[in-house]
Amino acid sequence: MEPLYCGTSPIVGFRFSLHPMSGNFIKIIKGALNRTDTSNVWMHTDDVSTVIRGKQNQVFNVAKAIALHAAKTGEHVALSGTFSIGCPGDSEGDAYLEKSDELPNQDATPQYVSSQFALYPMNNPAYMEVIYREIDRAKAHGVFNESMHYASGIHGDIHDVFAFYEESFTHARSEEYRHLVMTLSMSINSPSHGGNAHA
Amino acid sequence: MEPLYCGTSPIVGFRFSLHPMSGNFIKIIKGALNRTDTSNVWMHTDDVSTVIRGKQNQVFNVAKAIALHAAKTGEHVALSGTFSIGCPGDSEGDAYLEKSDELPNQDATPQYVSSQFALYPMNNPAYMEVIYREIDRAKAHGVFNESMHYASGIHGDIHDVFAFYEESFTHARSEEYRHLVMTLSMSINSPSHGGNAHA
Repeated sequence: MEPLYCGTSPIVGFRFSLHPMSGNFIKIIKGALNRTDTSNVWMHTDDVSTVIRGKQNQVFNVAKAIALHAAKTGEHVALSGTFSIGCPGDSEGDAYLEKSDELPNQDATPQYVSSQFALYPMNNPAYMEVIYREIDRAKAHGVFNESMHYASGIHGDIHDVFAFYEESFTHARSEEYRHLVMTLSMSINSPSHGGNAHA
Repeated sequence: MEPLYCGTSPIVGFRFSLHPMSGNFIKIIKGALNRTDTSNVWMHTDDVSTVIRGKQNQVFNVAKAIALHAAKTGEHVALSGTFSIGCPGDSEGDAYLEKSDELPNQDATPQYVSSQFALYPMNNPAYMEVIYREIDRAKAHGVFNESMHYASGIHGDIHDVFAFYEESFTHARSEEYRHLVMTLSMSINSPSHGGNAHA
């Protein structure tokens, strides 16, 4: 039986694809996954994307580490995906909620990233207020880049950017409105970034 | 003044990134954009993505044509993006709502694609019913691939897949619930597709 309404599980998921703009894409993707400690998340890969599930801090830790390892190849890589909470569907990966809060991936190498995100607080009549509040949060964090249709531009050092994303993902949901989706499209080592690429 | 609530404009937008898994990515992206007739949509490109806006049929026509032109290079390419209606923000591109319904891109070359999509009907208390109904529609269209966390797998010939996406995008919204978002992640010419890659 598929549930018609979303649950109360605190499990966070991130379904993503890593796209290296290189003929060496298989090696870069596998290398980034292998160099990342994923022991604290449930993970499954299919022909289009990979999904990781677990505690929120562990999921964000793994997402950032995969992007950072891919970035270190120097190739132009893109990470696109969707963070989600509050709609578990089933219980695969729930066991990972027992993991500690110790974060296994601690590489602090700086890396400029340019990204775009959108928040979708589901079934929340005040969702536009939530979105505008989170855009203000990005400005306060110094990672806001620009306004645009259907998304907001977020850029800066990968560690600042992911810290903002995790904080925003926490604050854009509430006890009353538990189902939250956040889309992310991130570009790294792009020739379009100009001088910023080495910031 | 930014609007706090979504409008009633019939303008459809698609913010997307095309990711060729090739060192030749700039040529492939520019080639796909140049070979597509985009005269019936408003278009803007930044350092992370491109957005097109206009009438729904024109936006889907351009989205499919860009994917198909990129596919013809034979390289592994991915298209990821977000379709949106009902939250115009401002009026850029509204002039394109006057365009005819004649669709300029008519290339019917078959091409297998594997993709994943998710629907986010905003501020609709019955949004899960909408989602399950659209998954049933995919099954009826013969393009359903598999269930998964946070998305549904849709595959087959690119023309069947885009026809389903456009139909689903029409039916997942209503007069009462106008703001609809649909995310799409599409993989083409992937070594992971196995025998299907040439179906």
